[in-house]
Amino acid sequence: MNDNFLKACRSERVERIPVWFMRQAGRSLPGYRKLREKYDMLTLAQTPELAARVSIEPIELLGVDAAIIFADIMLLPIAMGVDVKIVDSIGPVIDDPIKAVADIARLKPFEAGDVDYLQQTIKILRTELKVPLIGFSGAPFTLASYLIEGKPSRTWTKTKCFMFEEPQAWNRLMETLSDAIVRYLIVQIDAGAEAVQLFDSWVGCLAPGDYRQYVLPHMQRIFKALASKKVPRIHFGTDTGAMLSDFSNVDCEVIGVDWRIDISEARRIVQSKALQGNLDPAVLLANHRIIERKVDEILGVLDPHVGYIFNLGHGILPGTDARKVKMLVEYIHSK
Amino acid sequence: MNDNFLKACRSERVERIPVWFMRQAGRSLPGYRKLREKYDMLTLAQTPELAARVSIEPIELLGVDAAIIFADIMLLPIAMGVDVKIVDSIGPVIDDPIKAVADIARLKPFEAGDVDYLQQTIKILRTELKVPLIGFSGAPFTLASYLIEGKPSRTWTKTKCFMFEEPQAWNRLMETLSDAIVRYLIVQIDAGAEAVQLFDSWVGCLAPGDYRQYVLPHMQRIFKALASKKVPRIHFGTDTGAMLSDFSNVDCEVIGVDWRIDISEARRIVQSKALQGNLDPAVLLANHRIIERKVDEILGVLDPHVGYIFNLGHGILPGTDARKVKMLVEYIHSK
Repeated sequence: MNDNFLKACRSERVERIPVWFMRQAGRSLPGYRKLREKYDMLTLAQTPELAARVSIEPIELLGVDAAIIFADIMLLPIAMGVDVKIVDSIGPVIDDPIKAVADIARLKPFEAGDVDYLQQTIKILRTELKVPLIGFSGAPFTLASYLIEGKPSRTWTKTKCFMFEEPQAWNRLMETLSDAIVRYLIVQIDAGAEAVQLFDSWVGCLAPGDYRQYVLPHMQRIFKALASKKVPRIHFGTDTGAMLSDFSNVDCEVIGVDWRIDISEARRIVQSKALQGNLDPAVLLANHRIIERKVDEILGVLDPHVGYIFNLGHGILPGTDARKVKMLVEYIHSK
Repeated sequence: MNDNFLKACRSERVERIPVWFMRQAGRSLPGYRKLREKYDMLTLAQTPELAARVSIEPIELLGVDAAIIFADIMLLPIAMGVDVKIVDSIGPVIDDPIKAVADIARLKPFEAGDVDYLQQTIKILRTELKVPLIGFSGAPFTLASYLIEGKPSRTWTKTKCFMFEEPQAWNRLMETLSDAIVRYLIVQIDAGAEAVQLFDSWVGCLAPGDYRQYVLPHMQRIFKALASKKVPRIHFGTDTGAMLSDFSNVDCEVIGVDWRIDISEARRIVQSKALQGNLDPAVLLANHRIIERKVDEILGVLDPHVGYIFNLGHGILPGTDARKVKMLVEYIHSK
């Protein structure tokens, strides 16, 4: 069993720097692309044998140090009764988004039975994997933004106006989602996930003061509720440089950072937790020489063998060549 | 003559806090919308009487303390011979983008005669305006990203790969653009612009280390070349929190910040220059009470009567009600 990833999460010294990637299962891998010719994304994620196969592929092909369950952050809203369509080249679309407090009552409480398929996927994976398995969920802000906007947004104006103008309804929505997230992650942990990651992919669109007021208390509550499970908890967001000192006050083991902050600055702000990141995903579209130089720039300014997990700053981009990803893994492991 | 804006740029004390908005001329104003029914964007910008009328409208209707020339950052590439189309709901599109070093040679040097219309617009404006007039240009990174991507991008992968893999060609492109930008801004200043703003709207997509290596030297050169003109120079970008200490090392008078950093933190980092910003544009879509509270949060943490210009963190968003913008101006002026 390769436990470098779990050790690094706990800020224990490792011999070999652990590495995994967001979106490592999918897009650039041949097995995944072949399955996607036959099945849509949600069918793949909701069919245990297929989801397990897709989750394992990057371990076999790329040699990464952790697996992440092949799933989508919209699986939780779907389990809560939201009618979500995943539309190619757009993303999640909800025809009847949340507009008022009454719409929040339509969300049904999450039940473990709603994600039987996920528990089965995890059980298959645990028998087959020689690396730790990461469970995950979208964080409440990011989920709320999809539920309110109804589709991916670049300005998040509906979400922000709802938050500003209806703070009580906003808190009720965030609490409803937070309760569901905690139960959803506990189901994953109980089924066998050995670490969990909260994806707050869009929270960086907020002013830091708004983050502290409208989001941070909910994040603190979620991470606290997971403490007794004793698995490493990863808090990930993009574009969160100005929120990093707030992130570091949340009870978790690892903070994920994107590329828009120097890793040395992140290390200065986050002193008592592990860091995960922070290569610009665009670098993987450049040539080998560039990739190695950019990796060296990151590894050169911290002690990467203690409290550090190599990852990109966000998911692997479309068009990325899997051979380069594999080369990158080998390069990290040579350090 | 209301010179509060120029005084604030020079960090002199003002009685009334100056305010203007990016995209104040356009979108939400009735006169502009009426003209746009008849003329496309580029025709409006390239017809002096019309461009002047559009530039003046926000001064009359909103009561802002500065005018900005109605123009588009693509006017400069157009003057350099690039075939740019402004496509509704997409943005600038270039069918034959820059792919290699040879394409850079296609850019023709900027000549003042290429923007006669702009000089005429400025002359009309200077006779009619009772507030200072701001000239502007896109910054070289943002212009280069349009020229290389060929259309607006969310990942800027082509631009980044070009920058990483062809550093000499990249520098040549940045130098070519920088030379043109300096001449373009000097034409505007000589015609009557009393301040200039460099818009580096997309530079925040870069890792801070990449910014320092591939962009900062060019920004330093541009601002230095403008010093002898003795007009306030504003350096604006979005999502630049991690670059702000680098921004503060550039020879300019004002730094524009978006909302993704606390203004108090920006003030701590940028000590010897004026600041401009940083209200989240989404706030203007909320109700009056919210708008006033968010303004108070900004004005409460700095001395807004010295070295501060009120503005949004980026342009006024589509759907913003001009009456709210006017109310906001009056509220700022009451402080």
